[in-house]
Amino acid sequence: MNLRQKLEVARQLEKLGVDIIEAGFPCISDGDFEAVHTIATEIKHCTIAGLARCVPGDIDAAVKALAPAGDRARVHIFLATSPLHREYKLKKTKEEILVMAVEGVAHAKKYVQDIEFSAEDASRTELDYLAQVVEAVIAAGATTVNIPDTVGYTTPDEYARIITYLKENVPNIEQAIISVHCHNDLGLAVANSLAAVKAGARQVEGAINGIGERAGNSALEEVIMAISTRPEAFGGVTHGVHIKEIVKTSQVVARMSGMPVQRSKAVVGENAFAHGSGIHQHGILSKRETYEIIDPETIGWGATELPLTKHSGRAAVRQRLEKLGYVLTEEELTHVFERFKKVGDSKKFVYDDDISSLVNDSLDSQQGLWSLDFIQFVAGTHARATATLSLIIDNDKREDCATGNGPVNAVFKAIDRITKTKGKLVEYNVRAASQGQDSVGEVFVKVDFGTGKPVSGKGAATDIIEASVRAYLNAVNRSLTIPACQMREC
Amino acid sequence: MNLRQKLEVARQLEKLGVDIIEAGFPCISDGDFEAVHTIATEIKHCTIAGLARCVPGDIDAAVKALAPAGDRARVHIFLATSPLHREYKLKKTKEEILVMAVEGVAHAKKYVQDIEFSAEDASRTELDYLAQVVEAVIAAGATTVNIPDTVGYTTPDEYARIITYLKENVPNIEQAIISVHCHNDLGLAVANSLAAVKAGARQVEGAINGIGERAGNSALEEVIMAISTRPEAFGGVTHGVHIKEIVKTSQVVARMSGMPVQRSKAVVGENAFAHGSGIHQHGILSKRETYEIIDPETIGWGATELPLTKHSGRAAVRQRLEKLGYVLTEEELTHVFERFKKVGDSKKFVYDDDISSLVNDSLDSQQGLWSLDFIQFVAGTHARATATLSLIIDNDKREDCATGNGPVNAVFKAIDRITKTKGKLVEYNVRAASQGQDSVGEVFVKVDFGTGKPVSGKGAATDIIEASVRAYLNAVNRSLTIPACQMREC
Repeated sequence: MNLRQKLEVARQLEKLGVDIIEAGFPCISDGDFEAVHTIATEIKHCTIAGLARCVPGDIDAAVKALAPAGDRARVHIFLATSPLHREYKLKKTKEEILVMAVEGVAHAKKYVQDIEFSAEDASRTELDYLAQVVEAVIAAGATTVNIPDTVGYTTPDEYARIITYLKENVPNIEQAIISVHCHNDLGLAVANSLAAVKAGARQVEGAINGIGERAGNSALEEVIMAISTRPEAFGGVTHGVHIKEIVKTSQVVARMSGMPVQRSKAVVGENAFAHGSGIHQHGILSKRETYEIIDPETIGWGATELPLTKHSGRAAVRQRLEKLGYVLTEEELTHVFERFKKVGDSKKFVYDDDISSLVNDSLDSQQGLWSLDFIQFVAGTHARATATLSLIIDNDKREDCATGNGPVNAVFKAIDRITKTKGKLVEYNVRAASQGQDSVGEVFVKVDFGTGKPVSGKGAATDIIEASVRAYLNAVNRSLTIPACQMREC
Repeated sequence: MNLRQKLEVARQLEKLGVDIIEAGFPCISDGDFEAVHTIATEIKHCTIAGLARCVPGDIDAAVKALAPAGDRARVHIFLATSPLHREYKLKKTKEEILVMAVEGVAHAKKYVQDIEFSAEDASRTELDYLAQVVEAVIAAGATTVNIPDTVGYTTPDEYARIITYLKENVPNIEQAIISVHCHNDLGLAVANSLAAVKAGARQVEGAINGIGERAGNSALEEVIMAISTRPEAFGGVTHGVHIKEIVKTSQVVARMSGMPVQRSKAVVGENAFAHGSGIHQHGILSKRETYEIIDPETIGWGATELPLTKHSGRAAVRQRLEKLGYVLTEEELTHVFERFKKVGDSKKFVYDDDISSLVNDSLDSQQGLWSLDFIQFVAGTHARATATLSLIIDNDKREDCATGNGPVNAVFKAIDRITKTKGKLVEYNVRAASQGQDSVGEVFVKVDFGTGKPVSGKGAATDIIEASVRAYLNAVNRSLTIPACQMREC
């Protein structure tokens, strides 16, 4: 995600009512630093956390990036404690790691009061050693101690035992909040998080839609709805989340991250409340609760407004965008409104989903260098697909044409010719933003420009070939601006 | 899924080594009856189960459909036992339901030895009454008793307590296998299944990729890999699954069902073993186990073969198709080979994923009434998209043209004109089957032809507009043949 996309997600998370937003890893790249700094500036109610390895350079960068958050700043320091990580990754002894942990927390405490310490790979760490580390970092000033299941290895019973052990064997445990952070490699992230809550954990880390490294993190919306639906099963805990915002948050995260949600995903999947079988439909009609344990309206399903049309004015579009959660500058609004008018000319109703797809595309394209002038193409089963493109760079129009085994292939080759890039398409997905044959199409691509690190791009238009061009151009533009965001050593 | 698709999935499940395949609900439609009958005929090693409500008509249909399986036939009878379902859906008393359950099982036992009884919504049923029902159906001849969490409401601890209660309070419980069937509405299906296994359940029902009603069923591949990775955490149980087939099975199910897998899905998602962060990559290079608890190769990741080219002959294509698990007739092979040659002409390498997408498309299109003759279209940002189509029905060519706000809109409108249908596009997705700009594109559509019940369709071609036409035509054809498969009363 770029800065603008991260900020949209952060704004929506604030509306959802989460307590803490972990905004990035300030030392890892200039882009992450800027993201944390901007979110710390713009978000007014949540605590903002910045990640740091347990070394002074990382911690100092996090402190600096988080400065605008004032007393809502949290430095989140992590250091691995498991035998595997100690021996093969860190090449350090137990004692050395203990000293490092305490020094890191103490260093951060000089600048920030709210310190989270994560014992990376905690679930594969010797229990007595883990307790020793937790006790030491709390004594050094950590206010939250996180016990991550970094590789998604633990099980609910085992994880609950770890939390219980720490509560019983760390003398100063009451001075900190126990946090859990679960990965989903065996499909148990949500269950593990909930088992830990029942055992006494009071902070759950996760991600909306369960996105994250590998198989992802604990899906926050599932944890939230399990607690809302079955509070007595998890020790009677409560949360401060506004569940009505769940579906919208899921959609914003899916769009901004380019990670669509599986249709059958619990809580937020398109099919989560669809009843296909006749027997189930019959049951639902007799009484909803026979086959539904959550009323979909309470989490924001079905809350769409009347569609806009080409006659809708700038004010109406602005109002709808605000309702959808987009905070745009006048210049950005102008850009989106121009695209809206064009779409309004080509389809009768412009749905909220159509508008959202345009916003994302428009915000993306502003940071780029190349923009689209025009496309024309002919193709068919008995013709060689041929496309002509004109692109603009620095007010200069450049055009060229190319053939391909289909129109998408042809337009991508034409872009490569004009922009002098050579991209390999690693991933290509299209979905209709709304229903109807005339819907806006959203295209998501991942392109490898020879670096081995694919760059993603998104585009939207009623013509999916145009949307494909916008997505590929977006990837080209991002590849040109990306070097500043590459990982660097701290 | 149509019959052919179901059969491909069944064949792959047999290779995976599952014990039982539940092939359908014979009484609910002629299509389901035929599917169960065909799978019972073709599959030689797994037990084949057919679903039945607890009424003689349903049971008789299941017995008939399962006949070819001989002593591998299982009738699976379900009847709801929870207060909500008794009162609002069935409108029957506890006593009436108990009598129905016993009579149903006894009726089935006259014809088939292997009987599974499911107490629908068991997790919301009074424990003492559930125990009473379970005892009675075992006495009547049930060999497997299933305790479903029909609405995805239970939690691991609670579900384990239910299983433990039944083991302790049902005198004849040792005469049957306890089975579990979990839904994922709160994201806990896998954890609940595993908790039940630990408590003594010995059959886990689920679906590959976790597909199913609403948020889906327990994802079998996650249950399998949790047991394989952490056997000691689940009572030391073992399973007979060939885990090397897991990734392929996931891909076959995703293709055949038209339900793509989320990228971050545990075990089988494209990102499940991708390490994005530099720190994780460093760890993996030092020692794989630092961030990976499953070796992806053991479950079939990365096992792709050299791609075919246009010079590959019929024998090579046949061999590759067999390796990919497709059993085709000579006529079907001819059909696929023709499409392969065309694709080979338009792209250098034809990957396994490209071939798979063609097979699915070809098998689909054979059962249809309309087929594609040719397409031609022009479009662009400053032109009105215009498409001309020629379709064939009963050896008769029919052509027409249409305009639209993009080429997809235009071709779909042309199909509507020619076939005299009026479809509303409910869903539209495209993905590249393999990597590269010249990949085959796979299109998935859901179209509502005015019945309120959307019909799905799939198509594949290097040109995504052609693939879109094939998908939409597939939906049109299915809508023409579907009445025979509609639900009917038994």
